[in-house]
Amino acid sequence: MTKDRMTASLALPEIASLHDGALATRLQYVLDHKTKPLGALGRLEALALRIGLVLGREAPALVQPQMLVCAADHGLAARGVSAYPSDVTWQMVENFLAGGAAVSVLARQHGLALTVVDCGVARAIGPRPAVPGTPRLESRRVAAGTADASAGPAMTAAECAQALANGMEVVRGLPGNVLLLGEMGIGNTSVASLLLARLCGLDLNDCTGAGTGLDAAGIERKRAVLQQALDANAGAREPLDALAALGGLEVATLVGAVLEAARLRRVIVVDGFITSAAVLVASRLQPHVLERCVFAHRSGERGHALMLEQMQAEPLLDLGLRLGEGSGAALAWPLLESACRVLREMASFESAGVAGPSAA
Amino acid sequence: MTKDRMTASLALPEIASLHDGALATRLQYVLDHKTKPLGALGRLEALALRIGLVLGREAPALVQPQMLVCAADHGLAARGVSAYPSDVTWQMVENFLAGGAAVSVLARQHGLALTVVDCGVARAIGPRPAVPGTPRLESRRVAAGTADASAGPAMTAAECAQALANGMEVVRGLPGNVLLLGEMGIGNTSVASLLLARLCGLDLNDCTGAGTGLDAAGIERKRAVLQQALDANAGAREPLDALAALGGLEVATLVGAVLEAARLRRVIVVDGFITSAAVLVASRLQPHVLERCVFAHRSGERGHALMLEQMQAEPLLDLGLRLGEGSGAALAWPLLESACRVLREMASFESAGVAGPSAA
Repeated sequence: MTKDRMTASLALPEIASLHDGALATRLQYVLDHKTKPLGALGRLEALALRIGLVLGREAPALVQPQMLVCAADHGLAARGVSAYPSDVTWQMVENFLAGGAAVSVLARQHGLALTVVDCGVARAIGPRPAVPGTPRLESRRVAAGTADASAGPAMTAAECAQALANGMEVVRGLPGNVLLLGEMGIGNTSVASLLLARLCGLDLNDCTGAGTGLDAAGIERKRAVLQQALDANAGAREPLDALAALGGLEVATLVGAVLEAARLRRVIVVDGFITSAAVLVASRLQPHVLERCVFAHRSGERGHALMLEQMQAEPLLDLGLRLGEGSGAALAWPLLESACRVLREMASFESAGVAGPSAA
Repeated sequence: MTKDRMTASLALPEIASLHDGALATRLQYVLDHKTKPLGALGRLEALALRIGLVLGREAPALVQPQMLVCAADHGLAARGVSAYPSDVTWQMVENFLAGGAAVSVLARQHGLALTVVDCGVARAIGPRPAVPGTPRLESRRVAAGTADASAGPAMTAAECAQALANGMEVVRGLPGNVLLLGEMGIGNTSVASLLLARLCGLDLNDCTGAGTGLDAAGIERKRAVLQQALDANAGAREPLDALAALGGLEVATLVGAVLEAARLRRVIVVDGFITSAAVLVASRLQPHVLERCVFAHRSGERGHALMLEQMQAEPLLDLGLRLGEGSGAALAWPLLESACRVLREMASFESAGVAGPSAA
């Protein structure tokens, strides 16, 4: 019933397959004739192929990259599932906007336009004048945080649909052909763990980790609370139902953003555990979104490796990051640019007058 | 005797330990008070600590990064140890200078000044006018390639000493506080395999791989030739003797470059199998050089993982690269900049007014 109500009020885009055998063949030909041994740029070549297919170009260029950081609070946080208090969510949003957070610093380094979306932070973030070249705030508040999922649905179906619609609308308003995903929300590793356990039918223990820094006893408490949330929402098994029942407002907004970016055929750079959970939900609704995704890194957070496996995703970096915010996506970003430049700028054996392999 | 002659003619720098407990403590304090959970930036934090220690600064900045690509030819190549003919060495040097090679493209992307050194390419590279902002050629030819190591020493002790001195001098002439290492030379994975086997006492089979793309039969032939080289130079067991007997002119030049960069307390970014072999030799002469090194990636070339292990090095990237040139060092470069920016630009909990973890 939840689903009926939602689909009635919200049209989710259909995402088509990018399959284009002719373009894939041409891209592979171009890569194979660059001045390097066959395949010598390893996974950078697979990345170039993927970006070429998403953008539908043999010489792709990523333009006006957008880092989208969705923030919200979680009723579950009151149950002690995080090492940090909920107040840190709004404080970190202020830090993003002021330029002092990791994602702010990395976005500045790489020229990524940073948009922070208040999707439902408990303490509303006041509006402020937009200053070109600095992080921008969008207020898309659906509620002052979610309800406590251990006692029932975190969101109503209408709230979830609103967050999805917000995500789609925000992305429609952003320029460029590449979207980097980030998030902030004390308690949101719990959301990702719950969605992973529910949508993939996995043991909650394998899905639950330390988040921002729980000790062993803290993780045990967190697991017990998350089990209550699964039990309290036992009927929510379809992707959108599970998202409303177990999810967060920032995660739902990100699901909408992913679907819309996929529809617009933009490259989607996925950060860590929480943004991957949004992609997991989106891919259960529209499997072809995964063809548009580049997974930036394997998080140190327990559960992320498992989640990546479920999506057959092989991330670019493995640096033990577990910060979120979009920090891993920003760190991987230059590799995407490099992949495009290899396609666009490297000489071919012919153009450079370089000999190929000796006859065997 | 070889060694005596060499040390008589060449003063190698002494490299002191960077150990500075007070600075390390201050750097760790700064990292721990940035607005992120403890250790949440994973290996980027260890990287920041290392760069801070090399540059002796709590707020380090990498300036005027220099990519140094050393090129030379190898007598061994005539024995069919590579899938490509020796002519590719000079052709690729021309490609580096023309801006069409992978390292040229990546250096341009990241603003790395590119210097290509002709250390002993069989066909001499003609001089050309320097154009600011484009790759620069330095002619430091010791010979028109090495002798065939399978029949005796690849270099005389004097040639090897000259190449070492050249590497030191080239680095002294470069500005900045960070050196990225690259190389080109058809046949030089053989040199790296030989140095690994000899200096670390490892089985040659474990040290020998496909290079630019040998098939299984080709690798077998390569191994047989390399075994002849080990046998023909059985007495060359000390680092400098082994370098002269088994090494290449570009590897010896790189050893000198590494030692001088270490002396000047510059950060050294190591690329793949061949530049790692140069660092291996340098570290056998002066173990503390390793404290100045950042290993960019784990190459797809067999032997590199083993070589990294011997130096207890944990590289940043693992993308199946096996191109050399410095391409992996260039791809990892933005991570070094990010590490410095985290130290310099991220807010602390105090400065940003963000709460710390809840009391347990």
